Amino acid sequence: MASRVVRVALTGSGGIGSRVAVALLERRAHYLERFGCDVRLVGVCGSRSGVVRDGGLHEPDVVTRATWSPGVVGTAMLAAAEPDVVVDAGPNDYATGGPGLSHLEWAVERGSHAIMVSKSALALHGERLLAAARDSGSRVHASGASSAALPAVDFLRHNLAGAVVTRVEAALTGTTSLVLDSVTRLGMTLEEAIADAQARGIAEPEPAFDLDGWDTAAKLTVISGLALGTWLHLDSIPRESVGSVRASDIDRWRDAGEKPALVGVLERSGSGYVGRVEIQAYGSGHPFASAQGSTKALMVQAEGFGEYTLVGGASSPAATVASVLKDVEHLLREISG
Amino acid sequence: MASRVVRVALTGSGGIGSRVAVALLERRAHYLERFGCDVRLVGVCGSRSGVVRDGGLHEPDVVTRATWSPGVVGTAMLAAAEPDVVVDAGPNDYATGGPGLSHLEWAVERGSHAIMVSKSALALHGERLLAAARDSGSRVHASGASSAALPAVDFLRHNLAGAVVTRVEAALTGTTSLVLDSVTRLGMTLEEAIADAQARGIAEPEPAFDLDGWDTAAKLTVISGLALGTWLHLDSIPRESVGSVRASDIDRWRDAGEKPALVGVLERSGSGYVGRVEIQAYGSGHPFASAQGSTKALMVQAEGFGEYTLVGGASSPAATVASVLKDVEHLLREISG
Repeated sequence: MASRVVRVALTGSGGIGSRVAVALLERRAHYLERFGCDVRLVGVCGSRSGVVRDGGLHEPDVVTRATWSPGVVGTAMLAAAEPDVVVDAGPNDYATGGPGLSHLEWAVERGSHAIMVSKSALALHGERLLAAARDSGSRVHASGASSAALPAVDFLRHNLAGAVVTRVEAALTGTTSLVLDSVTRLGMTLEEAIADAQARGIAEPEPAFDLDGWDTAAKLTVISGLALGTWLHLDSIPRESVGSVRASDIDRWRDAGEKPALVGVLERSGSGYVGRVEIQAYGSGHPFASAQGSTKALMVQAEGFGEYTLVGGASSPAATVASVLKDVEHLLREISG
Repeated sequence: MASRVVRVALTGSGGIGSRVAVALLERRAHYLERFGCDVRLVGVCGSRSGVVRDGGLHEPDVVTRATWSPGVVGTAMLAAAEPDVVVDAGPNDYATGGPGLSHLEWAVERGSHAIMVSKSALALHGERLLAAARDSGSRVHASGASSAALPAVDFLRHNLAGAVVTRVEAALTGTTSLVLDSVTRLGMTLEEAIADAQARGIAEPEPAFDLDGWDTAAKLTVISGLALGTWLHLDSIPRESVGSVRASDIDRWRDAGEKPALVGVLERSGSGYVGRVEIQAYGSGHPFASAQGSTKALMVQAEGFGEYTLVGGASSPAATVASVLKDVEHLLREISG
């Protein structure tokens, strides 16, 4: 059987992007054997420089970056690389949508497929972008943009296919889970817990986006849109903030043996869903209580199936990379099937 | 867009089969809208009688069975119905493979697709049948034959696609989970707990198959084969039996606040997996400890992703039916894509 060439371009070459690039090169034989696809990484860029090679990049291109040129970035890189698949692992920007917005627009206008690790483009403009993708035949996967190592979209869309999901409750932000765990279980102050999460590389230097529930709201938006077909408006999702937690709350949770978490909630309403972000405390018998540190958790109710609780997916670059490589597998299965 | 006719035949008309038949008729408009598929139930049978209708059955055919004829059963029914998809919801037989064996053989020889609810054909002959399916282009789905409401195959194959699964530990048999929960948490004797599980319709009248670990071993075989590509030999899977539990074990678990469960374990070995069935006790902080009654549970370790625990999927006909309808959705997505 003749192999099918699949051209991949990668925008964003930070910690996740560069690992994804190396992994794509390492897995070429696997993709050929499994899907009959000759997966070529034909372009990669950061914010200032990049490289395009029609026959496919090699490891020195992405590891030492010896071949990169200034200005070969963004849609200019994509136009030169002409990819079948755009993988965007660039930064988020919730004011503008970030560079990922123009990359995803570029893909869906042309019927190229997209794998999104950055969240802000989908969280702000997901409904329009997915409608455009349907029209052009572009497939959009976004495990890395929803809750990465916690396979929320897969679980809702694939594992419960054909059933009506009535409720979702999920701890989606590693930073807030870790901070609330540290203050309750380990007795740290909020300030100590935040500094500790930063020292471990889990909390951002500017942690307010996570602590104020924006990160959970953004992930909830992507999960609801991709898995349930309801695109929430990010600005209008009610949010509670970890910053509002008082010492008396912590004492109460500790005395009751409860574990607090900042969770996103989706509830079925009419033919769609409404969302909110709130702090909930779980008793020791609750499955969420077993999620320690930055571990994520998902609770789902679906007609027929009943209730599920999934705990796992601690924040780590390796897990985010694994979620991107999963999206690659799903996409190759779809387009080679 | 012209709709594609998908002819479905259903072997087995017990509690699950008859519900599936009604659901397939009810969802025709949904399948047409979602997948562009005109799904026609063209044949259905029990063990003694059945009916074939080229243009598709209607509700009186499957509810009152007014149109059924003696002898229109098994592969004779299939040969007359000429289905694109065989749904087998007949009985299990671990000596012969059960009637599902000849139904699945019929399907995979012709390149028809199959959705298996019965387990014994796959548990005994899965490797040969799946190889034949690959050769003929037949797709085999078997959520109902693995752990039904607990989406173990989907989780391992889809949610963790591209990652190496290193370990699986799962409580797959509702009866044993319920019985062990009743003796430990509710203080019943083993005999009382079994009688209670039978009264609730969860344990079979002949419960030894479940209690002795055969049901878990059979599900483990199907999960390992379909999701991980390793077909275990059912007879050679080491098994512990709930019947071997002593009063002193129960006292010890209760004193330690532990929750026992009969679990199937898969561990990576070389390029494949080895399996065993054993009784394990979980401490109160363990996610499995929150699984009460007949609720199932799955723990998975995968390279890159880390560890997951999924709790849910209590034994119920509604959940088994939902898992069959999920397989229908997956199949229609694949063949209409």
